[in-house]
Amino acid sequence: MKQLAVKKKGPIAFQGARGAFSEEATRKLAGANVAVLPCERFEELFLSLKSGRASGAVVPIENTLAGSVHENYDHLVNYEFPIVAETSVRIIHNLIAPKGVTFSKIKRAFSHPVALNQCLDFFARNPQIERIPFYDTAGSVKMIMEEGLTDAAAIASSVAAQIYGARILRRSIESDRRNFTRFFLLRRPADARRSLPAARNAQWKTSLVFSTRNIPGALFRALSAFALRDLNLTKIESRPLRGKPWEYLFYVDFLGRVDTPNAQNALRHLGELADFLRVLGCYPKGA
Amino acid sequence: MKQLAVKKKGPIAFQGARGAFSEEATRKLAGANVAVLPCERFEELFLSLKSGRASGAVVPIENTLAGSVHENYDHLVNYEFPIVAETSVRIIHNLIAPKGVTFSKIKRAFSHPVALNQCLDFFARNPQIERIPFYDTAGSVKMIMEEGLTDAAAIASSVAAQIYGARILRRSIESDRRNFTRFFLLRRPADARRSLPAARNAQWKTSLVFSTRNIPGALFRALSAFALRDLNLTKIESRPLRGKPWEYLFYVDFLGRVDTPNAQNALRHLGELADFLRVLGCYPKGA
Repeated sequence: MKQLAVKKKGPIAFQGARGAFSEEATRKLAGANVAVLPCERFEELFLSLKSGRASGAVVPIENTLAGSVHENYDHLVNYEFPIVAETSVRIIHNLIAPKGVTFSKIKRAFSHPVALNQCLDFFARNPQIERIPFYDTAGSVKMIMEEGLTDAAAIASSVAAQIYGARILRRSIESDRRNFTRFFLLRRPADARRSLPAARNAQWKTSLVFSTRNIPGALFRALSAFALRDLNLTKIESRPLRGKPWEYLFYVDFLGRVDTPNAQNALRHLGELADFLRVLGCYPKGA
Repeated sequence: MKQLAVKKKGPIAFQGARGAFSEEATRKLAGANVAVLPCERFEELFLSLKSGRASGAVVPIENTLAGSVHENYDHLVNYEFPIVAETSVRIIHNLIAPKGVTFSKIKRAFSHPVALNQCLDFFARNPQIERIPFYDTAGSVKMIMEEGLTDAAAIASSVAAQIYGARILRRSIESDRRNFTRFFLLRRPADARRSLPAARNAQWKTSLVFSTRNIPGALFRALSAFALRDLNLTKIESRPLRGKPWEYLFYVDFLGRVDTPNAQNALRHLGELADFLRVLGCYPKGA
């Protein structure tokens, strides 16, 4: 019952326009019919959670082609909202047009330049279609629908086609299908504690950030805290600290619940070796 | 003399339009007056080097806000062109207009949406200026100059302003100054061997990629190859191999020349533990 009460408190914030891939992640993480709050900037997600305008926030954390979103790691460290769930969304680009517009009529395709660039094979096969940059993927669907364009398409998610009542002319036109984005669902600390017991039988992951001084073998020693306790890492990444030459921040995910004795021992051990250590969250492993 | 001969063989390929940040990196890596070959896609950089159209290629490999460019790591593994140099370019966005157009006349600013989004504080302070997405940063300067727009600006590098004869109205309008991109210069293997002795006294870095099976502590054991020999890592990053659950690719950079006995021993040791191991290059450490 408390779970439901938490969910009713407010919408889930995501970055982008209605129909963005972040909205798809939001519906996977918080339910198909959840109320949503589209935001322009990543930091607004954290501010809306802080102010209570949102009851949760969905943030992209890494992409299989483009890497980790360091900005969001920074916000995770600064705002201290715990991760309560993760999911992965395959980035599928579709050619979308108003109903009644056929493929042979399409002379222009609008989308975010990153999306246009991920469909270059499609454009090479269809040189009659001009690429036109637009502010975002979902927004380009909204625009062609509002303007009633009859020679234009947009490139966006299938959710965007659905929201704006448009039709998908070609599905999955991206060149590289290994394009996935991993998202975290964040809650306020009190709500996170309430939702923790929900999935007792799931496999769990714990995400953390730590830094070490640059002494030879510092990382090796830090990782011994996990290896000596048979805790399996699923992610490790170093990030140089700008302005502090030779100091590094490390992102680590390991399989396991943070509240088990084994994990607690590992974190205590790591705490002896690290200058800075913060657990970002413990959550059921996503599919 | 041979060095010079290599350099004269052909232009250096980079991705983007003339005046892109990649061109700035190219000039830092290969000389201010080097001939350049702008390409549309990352893979074209590798293809132009393979075909001999270019004598070198400059590829972005990681950004301090956006993470590692996994696509280019994939190309590095597949094409086997060695890294011979690295550099880091600070991404500085400038408001650029045709000469004679003053700041108070600017009603619109064109640029790549990623650049526009990195200048949101500027737009919040100047709500009279509308943001308009364009295909790329440098291309937006070219366009406002060709069209002779009198109420519009572009957001791009200072090199772009110079190339297209435009004027910088506001310098460094990006919200976050910790925005750096690291680039590699690649050569064909024969040319790389020739250029290796050039900087005998410099501090060197070696970059490599390896994979391990998912047995507990596999990464820890792999890193022992470096830690036991006091080789300092400057980067480590895991990347899940899609389609091969629980297998990971690791990117590692360490300080040292690959041809020293110590590094050779470390690589032999790592080779015993890794399923796959490839040295991507050995190059003088960038500033």
